[in-house]
Order: sequence, then C-alpha cells, then structure tokens
Amino acid sequence: MLVRAALRHQGIDPFLSGRLRPMVMNMMSPRIEKAPGLAIDLSVKLDFKNAAATDYDVVIVGAGMSGLYTAWRLAQSWQQSPKLQKLAAARADNQLRIAILEWSDRVGGRIDSYILDGMTHVPAELGGMRFTTSHQVLMQVINMMNMATEPFPMTDNSQFLLRGKRMDEAAISNGTDIPPYGLTPPEQKQTPNQLFNYAISQICDYQQNWSDANWQWVKQNVTFSDAVYQNLNLYDIGFWNILYRVLSNEGYDYVWDGGGYNSNTINWNAAEAMPYMLTDFSQPTNFLRIPTGFHTLPAAMAAQLVNQLNVPIYGKCRVVRFDTDTSSGTTTVLVENTDDPSQRGTLTTQVLFLAMPRHSLELIDQDCDFFLNETVQYNIQAVIPQPAYKLFLAYSSRWWNPELFKAGPTITDQPLRMTYDFGTEAERGGDPNDQRVLLLASYADMQATSFWGVLERDTVFTSPPNWNQTGAEGGADATGTMTRMAQGMLQQVFVSPDNPNPTPTTLLAAHYQDWSQDPYGAGFHAWAAHYKAWEVMQNVRWPMRDRNIFICGEAYSNAQGWVEGAYCTAESILEEFFGLPRLTGVPADYPLLSPTPVEPGNYEANPTYRYKEMQYVY
Amino acid sequence: MLVRAALRHQGIDPFLSGRLRPMVMNMMSPRIEKAPGLAIDLSVKLDFKNAAATDYDVVIVGAGMSGLYTAWRLAQSWQQSPKLQKLAAARADNQLRIAILEWSDRVGGRIDSYILDGMTHVPAELGGMRFTTSHQVLMQVINMMNMATEPFPMTDNSQFLLRGKRMDEAAISNGTDIPPYGLTPPEQKQTPNQLFNYAISQICDYQQNWSDANWQWVKQNVTFSDAVYQNLNLYDIGFWNILYRVLSNEGYDYVWDGGGYNSNTINWNAAEAMPYMLTDFSQPTNFLRIPTGFHTLPAAMAAQLVNQLNVPIYGKCRVVRFDTDTSSGTTTVLVENTDDPSQRGTLTTQVLFLAMPRHSLELIDQDCDFFLNETVQYNIQAVIPQPAYKLFLAYSSRWWNPELFKAGPTITDQPLRMTYDFGTEAERGGDPNDQRVLLLASYADMQATSFWGVLERDTVFTSPPNWNQTGAEGGADATGTMTRMAQGMLQQVFVSPDNPNPTPTTLLAAHYQDWSQDPYGAGFHAWAAHYKAWEVMQNVRWPMRDRNIFICGEAYSNAQGWVEGAYCTAESILEEFFGLPRLTGVPADYPLLSPTPVEPGNYEANPTYRYKEMQYVY
Repeated sequence: MLVRAALRHQGIDPFLSGRLRPMVMNMMSPRIEKAPGLAIDLSVKLDFKNAAATDYDVVIVGAGMSGLYTAWRLAQSWQQSPKLQKLAAARADNQLRIAILEWSDRVGGRIDSYILDGMTHVPAELGGMRFTTSHQVLMQVINMMNMATEPFPMTDNSQFLLRGKRMDEAAISNGTDIPPYGLTPPEQKQTPNQLFNYAISQICDYQQNWSDANWQWVKQNVTFSDAVYQNLNLYDIGFWNILYRVLSNEGYDYVWDGGGYNSNTINWNAAEAMPYMLTDFSQPTNFLRIPTGFHTLPAAMAAQLVNQLNVPIYGKCRVVRFDTDTSSGTTTVLVENTDDPSQRGTLTTQVLFLAMPRHSLELIDQDCDFFLNETVQYNIQAVIPQPAYKLFLAYSSRWWNPELFKAGPTITDQPLRMTYDFGTEAERGGDPNDQRVLLLASYADMQATSFWGVLERDTVFTSPPNWNQTGAEGGADATGTMTRMAQGMLQQVFVSPDNPNPTPTTLLAAHYQDWSQDPYGAGFHAWAAHYKAWEVMQNVRWPMRDRNIFICGEAYSNAQGWVEGAYCTAESILEEFFGLPRLTGVPADYPLLSPTPVEPGNYEANPTYRYKEMQYVY
Repeated sequence: MLVRAALRHQGIDPFLSGRLRPMVMNMMSPRIEKAPGLAIDLSVKLDFKNAAATDYDVVIVGAGMSGLYTAWRLAQSWQQSPKLQKLAAARADNQLRIAILEWSDRVGGRIDSYILDGMTHVPAELGGMRFTTSHQVLMQVINMMNMATEPFPMTDNSQFLLRGKRMDEAAISNGTDIPPYGLTPPEQKQTPNQLFNYAISQICDYQQNWSDANWQWVKQNVTFSDAVYQNLNLYDIGFWNILYRVLSNEGYDYVWDGGGYNSNTINWNAAEAMPYMLTDFSQPTNFLRIPTGFHTLPAAMAAQLVNQLNVPIYGKCRVVRFDTDTSSGTTTVLVENTDDPSQRGTLTTQVLFLAMPRHSLELIDQDCDFFLNETVQYNIQAVIPQPAYKLFLAYSSRWWNPELFKAGPTITDQPLRMTYDFGTEAERGGDPNDQRVLLLASYADMQATSFWGVLERDTVFTSPPNWNQTGAEGGADATGTMTRMAQGMLQQVFVSPDNPNPTPTTLLAAHYQDWSQDPYGAGFHAWAAHYKAWEVMQNVRWPMRDRNIFICGEAYSNAQGWVEGAYCTAESILEEFFGLPRLTGVPADYPLLSPTPVEPGNYEANPTYRYKEMQYVY
C-alpha cells in the first residue's frame, strides 16, 4: 500500500485512487507571499545525517488542520502539562522540542484556497469552504489569529435540474413544480431537504428543539422495529437501509439526486446520519467564511509556528513506518523525501501525533505493533472515506441569471452535482469595474468523482494569452475536456425563462482538486454502521496506553467534514491526556467529542419510533 | 493491508471491505462428498517444521479456476516443457514437485455452488453461473472432465420495475410501455440493451458482423472527436464520459438502471466497454451451465490433482510475502495458517504462479522487490475491482407468474437489481412432485452491494423446523433482515396483472455471498481508462523477466468476469513461457488473449466516428 503510494508519486499512478500531479504550493503564491510573516519555506528541512537534529519530544505527522492546531497549542502551553514539563526538563535548554512532518509541500491539508486569474478577492476554496458560529473552537482560533469573517451566502431558493426537469425550490414546496419522481402522496410537495426531515420524523419522533445532547441519547438508545427490522439499534442499521423503510424507492432516489451530496445518502450509520442531516443540511444555517481564503488560517498558524514558536514544518516528508520501544517510550520514525524516495532517514520522539484521516494512516506500513493492534485496527476502520472533487471556473463576467443562481447550491443529477456562484471581484471588494466571476462549477462526491477523474489526463486548458493567470503555476489546472464537459452541463443547468440559451463568456482559468488522491484518500468521512461512534471517537485517540501515540482529525470526530471536528479531537487529547487547560474563550461545557446524552423529555413515554408501514407501494 | 486482512480473519473485521464469516466448505457438503473421487481433505497440510517437504519446483497461489487449471495442465504435461524438464531432472525421482496454496478452505475461487434445503438438482451458483460455446478452452475442459452441460435459460422478455413502473421488454420495444425517463426521440422505444447498441453505434460506425479481431482494431486505432473530446483515443475516455456525449443524462440513467449490472456502466475503459457490451450483454447469446453445479468442475479437477496427479492443495494457507534470490532463481514464500496466524512457515520454489485477482495480490506484503517494481505495479493497477453480491432464497413453491418471470433476468432499480428464477426441483430433474423453487433473489453489484453488506450482522434466518436445511452448515446463511428486506422488494417486483398482490410461500432457506470480502475483493473486474488492455494482459503475465513469477486469472484477461478469461491467461503462460503444446481440442488460431487486430473493411474510408451533437437538450 505504501509502496503503491510511493510509486504514484514517481509517476506510476494508474488514475484509480490517486492522481498524478504535484501538490499546489499555495504558500508560495504571490498573494500569500506578500502577506508579512506568512512566507515560510516548506522544502525538506530534515537532515537525515544529523541524528542530533532529529531527536524530538513531540512529532506531529500531518500539517493539516488538526496537526497545526496540536503544534500551535503545545508550543504555547506545554509548560502547563506535567507530562511535557518532564520531557522538557530532560533537555539542556529545558525546552520541549516539537516538529511537524508533512507529505505534501504545503500546509492546511484539506483546506486549500487558490487564486484563479489574479482574482485575489475571490479565492477558490478547493477544500473546506465554510463554518458556523456553533463551531466554538474554530471561532476562538479565528479570533485569536485576528482573522476577519463574513457570511458565506447560501441561496434560500435552490434551482434544480433533475431528470431533465428544471425546478425551483419554492415552487416545489408550493406544488407548482412537481419533481419527476414517482413519489407517494406524503412525499409530494417536498424539497429534498424537507423530505429528509419527513423521513427522519418517520423513524424517530423528534422535536425541533432537541439539543445535541438529546440527539446523543437517541443515537445510543433508540431502537427501530418494523416488519423488516426486529428491535435493532439505530446504529446497527444503514441510512439507506432505513430510508428504504420510510420512503419509496423513488423517494430515496429523489433525496439521493436532489440532496446534492451523495455522501449523505449512502448506507452509513443511521444513528449518526439522522441528526447530521437535520442540523447540517436540512435547517437554515448561517454559514461563515474567511474572506481572504480559508487557507489564510493554516498559513498564518504555520507562519507563527515556524517564525515565532520554533516549530519546524518539514514538507515533502513521508512517514514510511514507525516503531516504539515501550521500555524507553521512544518511537523511531522512518521518513522519506517524496522527491527522492532513496533519501530516507530516521528521527526519534517521545510523543507521536498522527493527525491524519483513515487513508493517510493506511499509507503507513501496517506491519508494526501499532497497526497490528486489534483496538487500533477496529477504531481506524470505523469510518468510510468519501471521495470528493471540486472544479472552479473563472469567467470574464457572469453569464447566468444572478437572481436565480445566486450563491448556491444549484443542484443537478448530472455529474456536476452542485454549483456555487462565488461572486465577482467587484462584489467581493475588488475593483468595482472588475466583473470577473468565480464559479464552483462542480462540487461532486462519491461515484460522480470517477466521471471527472478519467478526464484528468488530457491537455490542460490554456487561458487566453491576454489574461494574467497567476494562479496556474500549480499542477491542478483543469484539463480542456473537463472545462468543455462542465461548460456543456452548465449550459443546461443555467437555462432560465429570461435566458433560454445561456452562452458562456470568456473562460479565463480553470482549477480543480480531487481529494481522493494521496495522501488524503477522501474529501470527508462518515461513520460506518455497527460502530458506536461515541465510543470510537474516545478510544481512537489513544488506542494503546503503553505508548504515547495519538490519533486526531476530522475523520474520527463528532463533526465529520468540518474543521471544527479536526480542532475538537486535537483539543480533547491535549486537555484529557496532557492536562492542558481548555483553550481560552471556549466554554467549559462545550463538548469536544459527543455530548453527554440527555433523554429528551418524556421520550420513553412515546413509542421508540413512529414508523408506519408504507401505504403506497407500486 | 495484509495485517488488516489477518485481523479480519480473527474477527476484527469492521464490515467495510471484508465480511466476517468462515468460508463455506462446499467440498464437504453431503452432495459432493457422496460423489466418488471428489472428496478431498482441504485442511492445512503444510508441515512448517519439515523443510524437506516444503521444497517445490512450482508453487501456485490460489485454488481458483486459473490456479487449478495451471496445476492440472502442468501435472499432466510438464514433461513437454524443456524448462520444467530441467527442474525435474534435478530431483532424485525426476518428478516435478507442484503444490497449490489456498487462503480459504475450499477450491473454486469465485465459482461456488451451494445446495439449499437439500435441493440437489438446483444448485445455487453463488459465483459464476454460466458460459457460452464460444469459450473454447472451458468447453474443452468440460469435455475432458466428462461434465454434462445444459442450456442456461434466459428470458427473451425481461420484466422491469424501474422508477416505480412495471414494464415488459417487448412492450418497451413496440412503444406500448414507455420508460419513465425523459428520453430524447432517438432514445425512445428502446430497451436498455437496444439503447446501449444505439449509443455505441453513435460512437463507432460498427457492423453486426464485425469479428473480435475487427473490434480489436477499433480498440487500438479509433479516436473520437467532438465538441468536448479533441481527437482522443477511445481507450483514453471513460465509458460514462463518452456515453454522456451520445445519450442524454436521462438516457444514461435508463441504461444504468435498466442494464442490471452497474459494473458495465461505470466510467471504465470506453474502448473495452463497447464490444463487451455488444457481445456479452446486448445480443442474443446461448448460455450454458453445468447442471450439477459449476463447482463440480473445480471440485473434480481438485480431486484429480490430489488423488491422481500427486499435487497437494493446502487450504487455510495464506501467503504473507515472498522474496526471490535472482542468482539461484529460488523464491521463498512465507505462509500462515489462517486459523492460527502465529503458525507460520516457509517453502521454496523455482516457479511461482500468482493465480489471483487484484485485491488478492494486494493482500500480499507489498514491500518486496516484486511488488516494488514499477512494471508490476502499473499492470496490477490496470483493472477496477467491482463488488458483487448474490442472495438465494428457496421457497416451498413458486409464488410469481411463471411465464412473465421465467428464467431471468428480471430487472429493477431497487437494491435487488436483478432476479433469476432457477427453477424447481421437479423442473430440474428431481422428484416430479417436488415444487420447491430456487430464486436468485438479488444479483447486485457496485454500490448496491453496500445496501446488503450492512445487513450481514443481524440474526441469521431460521428455517422452519419441519424442513431439512442441509445447505446451512456454512457461514453464509442470510440474515433475517436480508430475507425480509428482499422479500418486500420481490413483492413489488413480482406484481403482474394476474397476481396484483403476490404472496410469498414458505421460505425454506436463504444463502448469500458477498464477493467484496477477503481474499477476493471483487466479483469481477473492468479495465480502467488510459490503459492499453491488450498490452497489459500480455505484460502482466511475466512482468519481471529475471525471475519466474507469473500472474494469471480472470482480472487481467480478454474475458473479464468469465471462467474463460481465467483459463485463457493461464493457458497462454503455459504455452508461451513454458513451451507446452496447446490444450488438445482447442484450435490453434483461437486467441487466448486479445486477437490480432484486423481492420474492418474500408473503415478508414468512413469517418472515424459518426457522432452528432445531441439535438435534444433540455
């Protein structure tokens, strides 16, 4: 596995799971380089021959959001940890030695903002692009880093192109637009999100005011019985399995197509899926973004680490394997230069953080005591990696109806899946005459990513020579086939009464990211059925108590797919296992993992479910 | 990777890629045990402590169809190979020493027949279930093994339940049943198979009488250009990508749903997909089967090997890793008892056959010279593993219209996907009064397998106590949720004018197989885009010429998904690299891999494609 990955990096990649292209070095982009204090050197710093330089107290693998956060918190507060004080005391200078190892040549992991065509006010968010005020650790970090935020606009009236029919969200609700699905009467006049809510209400008699703690009680205690399921725990059922009991097959297809994300509708853990769908996607949420690009946050944190906190970040540095001597507590880490796999070296550490998602963990040699451990394996395999793909197109000006297609998402069952209008330079605070517009033309996940993956190998799209495409020096420029294929779909998606034949303006630049590539392996993760997520997210953090190896990150969190999940798992390890006081400003009762379950008022007096056999079968 | 697999075998399996259950030991089932000469002991025979007993000339990893065939041919004909004569001459008894190592406890690989409820005349084909007379190597082997064949019945008028609408294949063709898809005029009045043919004709101006050699020329030479693709080789395009150019999105959804197999419609290699769809699925084909069960063939071959040809088959014997000393030519193989992973041993061999599909190969430790080799990696990764699932239900008598639903496939977009009626004991030659009937209730692949996978952990279905369920001693009994869920879908699928409320008779037994489990990892395989399949299938066989390690099997063949592919790749290695004369009875000009390309008559005088821009967009 690790070998295939290494070969891929050398150009042997067969297009299937990874993609052959160098990572984009955003830290070196003109915009970020100009910001004072943000320019850091991410070339390989590790001196394999100087063993003295490679002896650390804490090594963090992964410069993504959880890895950077761990280093940033430790570098500032290790003095408050008795365990770490002890390690530092053994040093001549009484200082804790921390380092970060990163496979790619940039920081941020699945947060990566890219500037197309010099449109500095409209960064293309190749990865995570939004958050909410409920994300209290992230909000606090943003405050501490003096970052600005602004609303991430979402349309309140999504446009749909499903099964060849254009529809309007409001018109679906009021029955004017009838979705071309063979829906049963109770499924009709409902948007996909409304139908999700309806389906969940058929499974569990929930109230709108239930807290996360109430939902946690449901996840752990509610069972489901009907003609098929005989008193099964919700977490033992797949979300698809149970939706099949409360929706018609056509109803399921409608939410599969119309929900935008296929990730949400696969057969993942039903207990986790239900509140996730209600809180994350089916109710009005005020999203925020960082106007200068989400990547500004990890870049600023990395700059602080390198320039002020004396924590080196070694890029292009792949962890091949590690082994722990449990008598001394020392873990020896074998690393490799990704530009030249023959260049290998070792470093030692007392504490190892694996700040990585499932696939990244599995790229490390599994033939070691740690990965051979049953508890480690059981916990690592508790989540389903979900491929995701994003394609951004920059146009000379908007060529779609700005009212109907403002913000997003616009949703289709074509391979594009979801489209977001990121706005023009003028609208985002640039030159008022600059009408260049950025479109997230495709936000696709699961099987739809395979449509675009095959198109990665064609000739790269060439910008018109009279335009300055400053963002294109990376390796993720879209191919010509990608842009032409996407544009043909957009011409169908953007049809509107006032614009029956939408005609593209000049395409200035095109950039994409496929998160199924190494080392990520997925855009986001979902809990698999049969796992008690609330237990796994506790246990995966420190799975072998005889050695100081910790796992953190979004994949095994209570907020999968969000930066908050990455931060919370890291924070919980620092507090619980190292004794660090809570990050200033985050309330003491804010749950970092799953909240303590609280039974919803007189839930048990009601039936544990209110499912009724479908009355409308074909 | 290999570690996770071992843990799974110990019960750590997290439901995702593998399934936790012991393999079914069909060889020990009463039916097969009674057949003279077929009873063989597949328990672990390897004596790890007796090194003398573990020195072989030829070791074959995998007792599936290609592995058994390789051993069977070599054991009978090694004297005709100069290379093998030399190895034998070094032995005191001048005899070549051959052995087979098998992970599971049975032979046959993805051929596995199971007897439900003592219905010995209606074996449930959990894996491969049919073949055609065009499969000349298989036909010859069947003759040599004195096996009977009989037609595998296929309906000429499939019934469909798609998007909630019941339809009849003939009625779709004549326009009486209108598929509920927003089809463009040229797509209308076409069955899914007809629409596949139409789509392919839009890509390539093919004639019905084109030979495989003609198609081979097309695979290697035809390019495609239109508004999106600019003179791309067919093999550089994905099948989904190109179908998107010649069908509407609704047309694609119709063939995706109505084609039965999703495997055929994913974004695999377009050049390979086109003739595959035309010859395998879209034209009338006379399929055959072995009435006593397809498994009778590998079982008989294994019995010959063990009882007459002196070739031991070691079951429950997993290959952990192997290393070759290129100076001596000796490969050392580390093996492990799957019942007790602490029990390990080594054996040595001069020739190693890896008779395995992609996932099985990847379960072997990849950190060795062989798997580190770029050519090996490139070729192994050329195919896409495709999950597949089969669920068989045995009923006391048929409860569906025998005319409409005879044979199969009956096709639905519900998770069942495809249903086949395997007939009653009476119809298949048993007691004329025995009306017990076997139904392949679900034949599902790709994402639909995930629907059933989650249901594997519930309580196992319990047969009525008054019925003798002889087939249930294995570990693949279906769970109660599987049977109830499937039966609910069948009650929708089997609705017909004469039977508006089909009511199940007594369910006697239920058995399933999920081929995504270890060590298989897939039911079948498809060539990935960008690979020249005709080159890979040549090169993967002997990828490092400095050592005698060979790869064969269905996955890397010109007949993916068929036993013929397994046999042909093995035969080609034996002939080409060992000098064995062709298997008696197989014509000298029968192509074992891809045929020599022959340009179809004046193809170049015609346009290389006759694609026209779609005139009907929404």
